Amino acid sequence: MADKEKMTIIVFSGEMDKVIPAFNIAIGGATSGMEVNMFFTFWGFNVIKKNEGSIKSKGIMRKMLNFMNRGGAKRLPLSKFHMLGMGKWMMKKLMKDVNSPQVEELIALAKESGVKFIACTNTMGLMGITKEALIPEVDSLAGVATYVAHAKESKINLFI
Amino acid sequence: MADKEKMTIIVFSGEMDKVIPAFNIAIGGATSGMEVNMFFTFWGFNVIKKNEGSIKSKGIMRKMLNFMNRGGAKRLPLSKFHMLGMGKWMMKKLMKDVNSPQVEELIALAKESGVKFIACTNTMGLMGITKEALIPEVDSLAGVATYVAHAKESKINLFI
Amino acid sequence: MADKEKMTIIVFSGEMDKVIPAFNIAIGGATSGMEVNMFFTFWGFNVIKKNEGSIKSKGIMRKMLNFMNRGGAKRLPLSKFHMLGMGKWMMKKLMKDVNSPQVEELIALAKESGVKFIACTNTMGLMGITKEALIPEVDSLAGVATYVAHAKESKINLFI
Repeated sequence: MADKEKMTIIVFSGEMDKVIPAFNIAIGGATSGMEVNMFFTFWGFNVIKKNEGSIKSKGIMRKMLNFMNRGGAKRLPLSKFHMLGMGKWMMKKLMKDVNSPQVEELIALAKESGVKFIACTNTMGLMGITKEALIPEVDSLAGVATYVAHAKESKINLFI
Repeated sequence: MADKEKMTIIVFSGEMDKVIPAFNIAIGGATSGMEVNMFFTFWGFNVIKKNEGSIKSKGIMRKMLNFMNRGGAKRLPLSKFHMLGMGKWMMKKLMKDVNSPQVEELIALAKESGVKFIACTNTMGLMGITKEALIPEVDSLAGVATYVAHAKESKINLFI
Repeated sequence: MADKEKMTIIVFSGEMDKVIPAFNIAIGGATSGMEVNMFFTFWGFNVIKKNEGSIKSKGIMRKMLNFMNRGGAKRLPLSKFHMLGMGKWMMKKLMKDVNSPQVEELIALAKESGVKFIACTNTMGLMGITKEALIPEVDSLAGVATYVAHAKESKINLFI
C-alpha cells in the first residue's frame, strides 16, 4: 500500500552524453519520491567499473575488451563529435561552466538520493568482469529475471 | 476520471532515422486519443532549433557546438550510412517515393494531432540555447521534475 | 482478468550488441509468464530478414539499401569496436566461450517461449521489403496503430 512508485532504467550505453540523462532522470525520480533502480549492462559497465588499474580477466580477448572499455566514470566518450577527444573535453568544460555535475558527481548524487545500482550478471560473465572490478556504489548483481520483476512493477521504464 | 491516457517520449537523438519513429509513435498515440508529450533533450534539440540563422550563444565553445548542431528539421543526419550525405539524400528520396512525410511535415502533423513539444531546460543551459532559437511549435520549457511527473502517469514511456 | 501482463519492445536497432539485450529481455519476460511482442522497425529489420539471397526490391536505391542491410541474424554488426569486423568476431567468440546464445539461437529461444514478432509495415513500404524476404518466425505485419494499442496495455515498454 505504502509502496513507493518505481522507476527502472537499463543503462546499456557507455557514452557520457547518454549516461548523463540516465542519471538526471534517475536522480529526478528519486528526488520526487520514487524507488529507482539502474540496471547497468553491456557498455554501461564503463560507468560502474573502477577508474584505476587493470582488470584480471581471463583470456586475451577479454583482456583486450576490458582494456578498450577500461571504464571509469572519467573516461566515458561522447556518442558524437569525438573530434579526437575534443568534443568530450569541450562538453566537460561546458558542463563546468554552468555548474552541471560531471558523471562522478552524478554517481554520488544518485547514491545520496537513494538510487540503487544493479550490475548485469550476463555482461559480467561475457566480459569476464568480477565484482572486485566494480565501484563500491554497486548495490547488487542480478540477471534478467530480476530486471523483469522490477520493471513490470515500475511506472517508468527506460532503455538508454 | 475522464483523463486521457498519456504517452511521454524523450527525444534524445537528433538523427533523422531515430526522430522519424519518435514522431510516428507520437502521432499514432495522439491519433488514437492519447495525450502525448515529447521532451526534446540533447541532440534532440536539432529537431526543434530553427533552420535559419545563427544562434547567439555565449562563448566560443557554445558557438562551435551550436554551429555543428545547427539544427533544423531539414538538416538531420542519418545514424548510419551517411556516405558523405548520400545515405540521407537517398532516404529522403525513398520517403518521397512512398509519400512518407519528411521531418518538417511530421512536426506539422504532430502539432495538428495535439502532441505537445517540451524543451529541456538543462540542455538549453548547457548549450547556451535561448527560447528565441527554438521553433514556435515548442509549447513549453521544463526540467527533469516535470518530465518525471508526466512520465509516471504515462502508459507508454520511451527514450529515443 | 486472467489476462497476461504484457511487454512490448520496439527493436529499432540492427546491431548485435543491442539486439541481444532486446532478445534477452523478451525471453526473460516470456519465461516469467508475460505476453511479449517485439516490433521490428527500421534497422531492426536486419534481424528478421532472411540470411540467404537477394531481395527483389523495386528501384536502384532500394536495391542498394537492401544490399547494404542485407540482413540475416548472422550478419549483424556491433555498434562499437567494429575494428574491420574483428570486434564482432571477438564478441561472437566470447559468447561461445560462456555458452551465451548467438542471435540465431535467441530467435529460436524467443519463439519457443512464445514471444511474438511483428514487422513494421511502414519500414517495409519505405525500404521495399516484401513478406517473402522475412524469416518465417515473423507472426504478423502491423503499423503504428497496432503498436500503440499493444504498448498502452503493457507493463514494460522499451525502445531499443
